[in-house]
Amino acid sequence: MTSILQPKFHFAETQSFSVVDAGPCKVADEETDIGVDVGALSASCTRLASSIKEMKKAGAAPEKIQSAVDELHTLRNDLAAATVALESDEFENSLNRKLFDETVLRRMFVVPAFEIHGGVTGLFDLGPPGCALKANVVDIWRRHFVLEEKMLEMECTCLTPEPVLKTSGHVDRFTDLMVKDIETGDCYRADKLLEDHIDALLNGGTVVPTTAEEHRKVQRQADAYSPEELGSILVEYAITAPATGNQLTAPFAFNLMFGTKIGPSGTLTGYLRPETAQGLFVNFRRLLDYNNGRVPFAAAQIGLGFRNEIAPKNGLLRVREFTMAEIEHFVNPAEKEHPKFASVRNIVMKLFDRDAQLGTGRIAELTVGAAVSAGTIANETLAYFMARTQLFMVKIGMDLTKLRFRQHLATEMAHYAADCWDLEIFTAYGWIECVGHADRACYDLAVHSAATGVQTEAFKQLDTPVEMESVTLLPDRKTIGLTFKKDQKAVYAALDALQRDDSKLRAFEATLSTGEAVLHDGETAWKLTPDMLAFKRSKKLVQVVKFIPSVIEPSFGIGRILHALLEHSFHQRDSKDEQRVVMRLAPPVAPIKCGIYNLQTNVKFMPFVTRIEKLLTDAGITNKADTSGQSVGKRYARADELGTPFGVTVDFDTLIDHSVTLRERDTMAQVRVKISALPSLLEELCDFSDHPKPWASITSRFQRVCCVEGPIRHQVTSRCIFSRPAELI
Amino acid sequence: MTSILQPKFHFAETQSFSVVDAGPCKVADEETDIGVDVGALSASCTRLASSIKEMKKAGAAPEKIQSAVDELHTLRNDLAAATVALESDEFENSLNRKLFDETVLRRMFVVPAFEIHGGVTGLFDLGPPGCALKANVVDIWRRHFVLEEKMLEMECTCLTPEPVLKTSGHVDRFTDLMVKDIETGDCYRADKLLEDHIDALLNGGTVVPTTAEEHRKVQRQADAYSPEELGSILVEYAITAPATGNQLTAPFAFNLMFGTKIGPSGTLTGYLRPETAQGLFVNFRRLLDYNNGRVPFAAAQIGLGFRNEIAPKNGLLRVREFTMAEIEHFVNPAEKEHPKFASVRNIVMKLFDRDAQLGTGRIAELTVGAAVSAGTIANETLAYFMARTQLFMVKIGMDLTKLRFRQHLATEMAHYAADCWDLEIFTAYGWIECVGHADRACYDLAVHSAATGVQTEAFKQLDTPVEMESVTLLPDRKTIGLTFKKDQKAVYAALDALQRDDSKLRAFEATLSTGEAVLHDGETAWKLTPDMLAFKRSKKLVQVVKFIPSVIEPSFGIGRILHALLEHSFHQRDSKDEQRVVMRLAPPVAPIKCGIYNLQTNVKFMPFVTRIEKLLTDAGITNKADTSGQSVGKRYARADELGTPFGVTVDFDTLIDHSVTLRERDTMAQVRVKISALPSLLEELCDFSDHPKPWASITSRFQRVCCVEGPIRHQVTSRCIFSRPAELI
Repeated sequence: MTSILQPKFHFAETQSFSVVDAGPCKVADEETDIGVDVGALSASCTRLASSIKEMKKAGAAPEKIQSAVDELHTLRNDLAAATVALESDEFENSLNRKLFDETVLRRMFVVPAFEIHGGVTGLFDLGPPGCALKANVVDIWRRHFVLEEKMLEMECTCLTPEPVLKTSGHVDRFTDLMVKDIETGDCYRADKLLEDHIDALLNGGTVVPTTAEEHRKVQRQADAYSPEELGSILVEYAITAPATGNQLTAPFAFNLMFGTKIGPSGTLTGYLRPETAQGLFVNFRRLLDYNNGRVPFAAAQIGLGFRNEIAPKNGLLRVREFTMAEIEHFVNPAEKEHPKFASVRNIVMKLFDRDAQLGTGRIAELTVGAAVSAGTIANETLAYFMARTQLFMVKIGMDLTKLRFRQHLATEMAHYAADCWDLEIFTAYGWIECVGHADRACYDLAVHSAATGVQTEAFKQLDTPVEMESVTLLPDRKTIGLTFKKDQKAVYAALDALQRDDSKLRAFEATLSTGEAVLHDGETAWKLTPDMLAFKRSKKLVQVVKFIPSVIEPSFGIGRILHALLEHSFHQRDSKDEQRVVMRLAPPVAPIKCGIYNLQTNVKFMPFVTRIEKLLTDAGITNKADTSGQSVGKRYARADELGTPFGVTVDFDTLIDHSVTLRERDTMAQVRVKISALPSLLEELCDFSDHPKPWASITSRFQRVCCVEGPIRHQVTSRCIFSRPAELI
Repeated sequence: MTSILQPKFHFAETQSFSVVDAGPCKVADEETDIGVDVGALSASCTRLASSIKEMKKAGAAPEKIQSAVDELHTLRNDLAAATVALESDEFENSLNRKLFDETVLRRMFVVPAFEIHGGVTGLFDLGPPGCALKANVVDIWRRHFVLEEKMLEMECTCLTPEPVLKTSGHVDRFTDLMVKDIETGDCYRADKLLEDHIDALLNGGTVVPTTAEEHRKVQRQADAYSPEELGSILVEYAITAPATGNQLTAPFAFNLMFGTKIGPSGTLTGYLRPETAQGLFVNFRRLLDYNNGRVPFAAAQIGLGFRNEIAPKNGLLRVREFTMAEIEHFVNPAEKEHPKFASVRNIVMKLFDRDAQLGTGRIAELTVGAAVSAGTIANETLAYFMARTQLFMVKIGMDLTKLRFRQHLATEMAHYAADCWDLEIFTAYGWIECVGHADRACYDLAVHSAATGVQTEAFKQLDTPVEMESVTLLPDRKTIGLTFKKDQKAVYAALDALQRDDSKLRAFEATLSTGEAVLHDGETAWKLTPDMLAFKRSKKLVQVVKFIPSVIEPSFGIGRILHALLEHSFHQRDSKDEQRVVMRLAPPVAPIKCGIYNLQTNVKFMPFVTRIEKLLTDAGITNKADTSGQSVGKRYARADELGTPFGVTVDFDTLIDHSVTLRERDTMAQVRVKISALPSLLEELCDFSDHPKPWASITSRFQRVCCVEGPIRHQVTSRCIFSRPAELI
């Protein structure tokens, strides 16, 4: 693992006026290649899954689809086996997961909630260091995004009335697959049931080894089947309700939102929000006014989201209550350039784009500028935020070699979205999506406007009036009525939506002129023919252009980021006789910045310890005095586990000249410093702003102390300094 | 209103070694007296209500109780009338509530949640300035409490499984009064129904003016009646269900927690936590370990609480979702001294103690030291936190003249609590409880321990072993069984609890020896006689003392504090022709620290505006450039409404010497400053730490600018400076 104090890559974030592209994209070298076999297999799977979706949409023959599905199963089995082998290889060397989990729990970074009452799956508390780590990450997020971009931060409620989430689509589509006992009504997550059933089968020992692997393959992809596929497999395995042996229903969608009743009458259904975004969308009109009617602007929110996971797992990675930080950047759909794009143009990112996922399976390293020029990333604004996200990750100390941006496939994206990229972070559980970056077009503002009748348009004042051509849809009501019958209301709603989006309307007109075009509303698709619609063109001089803003949405899962940060910081000292853990958390995010120690139990040392505590506390530097009777090495080790980057020790020299040793966690190097210089020195080293000073800049300014931190008992002596120069500060 | 920049009182917070008491308590002078009439009336009401409770407990004759209740009604009517008159008098002069509400909404400090979808009563969002204000208040809270006292801050989940809240008592006792339509089952808040009914009655005009006041009196105390009283009044008024005209049930308790189902099966009932405290109690064992087994220590949590209010009202004062900040200070019940008590001993607080509420109705001004010496406040630790709370309020800019601590009456406190004081803040809605300070004894840890079997004891190592006498309860099972029959299980549980609390046990033994003693478990009380119990005494040498820690709990309602802060900051300029609002928020909490302006639209000014923006943003100073075409006076006024304390204006002199004017919001005074000096200057003025520099310290160091901010069009000129000295920084 690369030391967080010496990141492998340096980016010219502040190089604002550079306009030179870094040239054509480079393919990742062997070191960062995710492996040719797995890459190619993954690409084949993705390609095939994508074409199956297309076949279904195009209404291909069932047997043709089935054959493709079978082929996909085989490919996925191979991929799963290869991935598991690869990932366990990679982590055998770098993460002792058992020790990691034990440390995180024992030092109270993260603990199971309500543990003494038996706990609840998927609910975790942050203990003192976890809570401080999170507060620091959120503070840096706020400075990096909200302050830097003058975002309009809001705090909206978690309790949300049903109409809002009906409008956003969550009431109908925020679901997982479930089955029910047809007699008792007991519920099970369908894929979990299959997994458990296969476990029981294999543990029962009634299957021969050659078929065992077949079962494992089915088990591994249990959560990837469609409702129909999963239904057939449950029947095939003759799976019944575990508690009763009764028959099960076919798998059906289970809504993942927590419902409640708001108010005394019990008639107003509410949900705990599944995301913070909706609060910002419904406040759009007021936010626009607050911003004096000007677009672009960004709104932001840091807060809780809730998701009634059927089977929570992997600690903070899949939980039922989590902190999110979301940005909604509202922009004129015709002007997605970003004024500060030049400042990020030369940053190199690892991009796993749509074509690579369907083709080579290899990740490309591109500059942001090149990615936008080549059309890999849809527009400057989306790319700008992706780059800013990467800079944020570096700032909080994430291991840059374990980050990549993966683009959503066309079939994976919502129908309204223009482009989506997930920042994925590699952890012991594989690549985890931690930040989504989506260009959601005008969908969110349009649906809330349609549902409430409140305008969500913005205006652009033109310097000189221009002649604008507008296109109006003229449906042939008779033909549409006869063709779509009871669907016609939905068709008209979709046409209305189309009328509101000028560019989509023109594209639709062009497609229709070729003989037919598909109209869809996210749920249903209809084939329209030219006899159903006419298009009327008219021209007028306008000085103001109306538009519903597009939304570019970077959405951060803070819990997942904390987990990844802890994993990337986890380190074991080269130590022959014991497992000595060091959490190499970057100083700006470290929960406690400085430990304070007495070299040994001696009453004369205590006033100095107290004085240093007060000095640091007054300066806002978190600190923890550890004056227990143990050896100072043991106490250093205890602080190392908590990720405390610096330690100050009061010794016999302190009594003479009021100086102390200052120890750095990762190098274990020590310098001798005057007590009075500590606050400003530690402020420089732990600075929340963009540029904390590296330790190396300190060691050259101060007297190095020779010390021995042995592997066996961590005996430390700091008395063997060479000299005491006059310029000791 | 006292200016927040010149607080009326100064406290010697850091005077750590003062041990001198400030002498006997002073009675508040006329200026701060809450009014003799109201005071005396209030005291009579309180005294009578208290004695009615005692009469009920003691099983007095119903007619005797009724007569006392009638008398109480009359007294309360008079009190309500007097209070309304007094409070409206006081606020006619100081708060234009309509303008206040309009400003808070229009500038997006607080907005109704989901407004475009029709909104939900009791749910509010914080807009950009409200959100920033809250973030600043919370940051200062964290520094003032968590960092200063090295508290163990946690973040626990809102979703809470039922057993935890059953144990804490919330499932059974967290309720309000409700009635139901006996046919349709529709629910109503009983007191609200009464209020609405009387409104309809009076608006119908069928009552004569002399009886109208009688009705209003009943209406005013609608939420103060007992279930039985309210039931009779509903019958008296012949109130039926508004929707159907059907009969109503008798008033009954409605639980105020939001329920939900956790997990897929729908069998695990959960609630949204009504307070953050329980998360800390259930983590006590791990926290104690984290603190190396040492007591005292404090845990803290900042987070959401939820309360399904039947009738939310008054903006942020009674809402359904709110932020709390709670501290649980765990302490040996035998050692409630506080090591830092000397640092707060001389702080003067306004105390409205139990005796004054039952007696004179007057508030006393006492030093903290005197209050503890006199036994007014139960112990040093509780008093220490009360003083720290007051210092916090001063730090965030609360108007100190509008703060008081009110002690809970004996009848108002939970049976297990030792002492409780609410910090109340005076607002346009009267005195509002904003911070509770409770000594909850060992109740919380004991109930969770009893329910889970997990020990919540701490240990104290003694220097030398001591002989300890222990008392063991020996119940006579036969007598108890015969006397209490089906209650006997509850009686044994209460006896078990008594056995765990040595001091209560000894007190109980003493009372019982007089002939009888009352045993209670918070819900039921039983009379015990000496024949039911024996007490066995034994002695042994011990070196370790076990104890269940007491909990001292300061609990902050952040939303209420924000509301009070906005009210106390609200100010109107002396301005003849318009209502010019200034939010005099203290610089450390102000949402935006500095506005940036161009004197007029001139392209030459813009690079300076941009440069200043970047300078301040890089230094972490929130800022907002306003370069719209309006007069700079209008733009200053806009920033004044948001509470922006400082404004920087680029003018023609800037082009010559790179200096700008710096304007202070409250005095409207301006000085001339070099651009390069702005970041450090504003950091000094807005410092989050304890001691932001006052504006006055700045004006003496810089060149004053003569300017005119007129009442009519706020024309400002900053060109008429007298001279330009060389030492201009």
